[in-house]
Amino acid sequence: MFDDVTVIGAGRAGSAIAARLRERGVRLRENGALRLLCVPDRAIADVARSIEPGPWVAHVSGGTPLAALDPHARRFTVHPLQTLTRDRGPEQLDGAWAGVSAETAEGRERGRWLAGTLGLEPFDLADDRRALYHAGAAMASNFLVTLHRVASRLVAEAGCPPEALVPLMQRTIDNRFELTGPIARGDWETVERHREALRGTAFEHLYAALAEATQP
Amino acid sequence: MFDDVTVIGAGRAGSAIAARLRERGVRLRENGALRLLCVPDRAIADVARSIEPGPWVAHVSGGTPLAALDPHARRFTVHPLQTLTRDRGPEQLDGAWAGVSAETAEGRERGRWLAGTLGLEPFDLADDRRALYHAGAAMASNFLVTLHRVASRLVAEAGCPPEALVPLMQRTIDNRFELTGPIARGDWETVERHREALRGTAFEHLYAALAEATQP
Repeated sequence: MFDDVTVIGAGRAGSAIAARLRERGVRLRENGALRLLCVPDRAIADVARSIEPGPWVAHVSGGTPLAALDPHARRFTVHPLQTLTRDRGPEQLDGAWAGVSAETAEGRERGRWLAGTLGLEPFDLADDRRALYHAGAAMASNFLVTLHRVASRLVAEAGCPPEALVPLMQRTIDNRFELTGPIARGDWETVERHREALRGTAFEHLYAALAEATQP
Repeated sequence: MFDDVTVIGAGRAGSAIAARLRERGVRLRENGALRLLCVPDRAIADVARSIEPGPWVAHVSGGTPLAALDPHARRFTVHPLQTLTRDRGPEQLDGAWAGVSAETAEGRERGRWLAGTLGLEPFDLADDRRALYHAGAAMASNFLVTLHRVASRLVAEAGCPPEALVPLMQRTIDNRFELTGPIARGDWETVERHREALRGTAFEHLYAALAEATQP
């Protein structure tokens, strides 16, 4: 659908995407038929405005609306819903999903083509609800890091090595997020003991907010 | 170390533990040399008191102190740090860790023997800090379920299927909890957009508490 693509930006996303396109036989060159912006969110609008209208223009940001690609009309966005690291290559895109936003059928078709070419499973992302979507993605990934950090500090106080949490967290996902433990059992005495133990620590309010959100 | 064990309780933990002991050639019978209480937390003290002193007595609860095994002096606790489901068998213990608490070297040795026999990696769990430990375990597992639920609802609002979060969450663990996304980048405008999008929803305070705990 695009024989040649210009990938702009060589950060975590840009590097993996460029490598994947190369693997798939897509030519990467200056002035390609698609200008794919893999730049920091706050730079997208400026970079888009610097491109002479004509080619397709897209970005890969989750939280940035289509309008950031003004003045281009032939545009779409493809957001890989994955946490990307420089330690991995294009294979880190495999199995992940991608939110595709566009204002036209042609834009959507091209966005889906790009997602598929990258090895991503596309879904239609509502451009006017990106902030909710992106907040959800942060909940799932960034705040999972936070849970691990906080939990590591708490269990370490009792002699438990932080790596002991890893099989627990992995299995929680493998068990399709089946809730076990005190809240699932309605064991509020235990929950109260947790709250008591955390009273006065930096995690008191966090625990309370999480416990409240966990109740059925 | 124990040729015969009496497993009391056939819930998630008791079922997996009994099956594993059987696999390992430990005889399960009435009046065994070890009475292993796999009963609900609030029943432990009553069940312990109902046992005539003499045999070793242990429980497998994370949040319950050794004192719940009164009046027994030959006692220890082994807590499998894992989320257990009825859909899996004893193999769900493999690769998990176990907190072992005891007041004597002999108790600790026996607790470690039991953990090893169950396929668990033992660590010494400080009995007087169990509440912190257990709160940490709940953070890691139960609240991971919460994050997934909340994130699923948020992304669904924008058209994203909840299953799209699974590869993201798995990779976050596989990447050893490397933080990516707006907070890692110091992109507070994006964080502010998330907060704006969640204003007035049930998740406003949860997001704020998590974002605060995530900052370096």
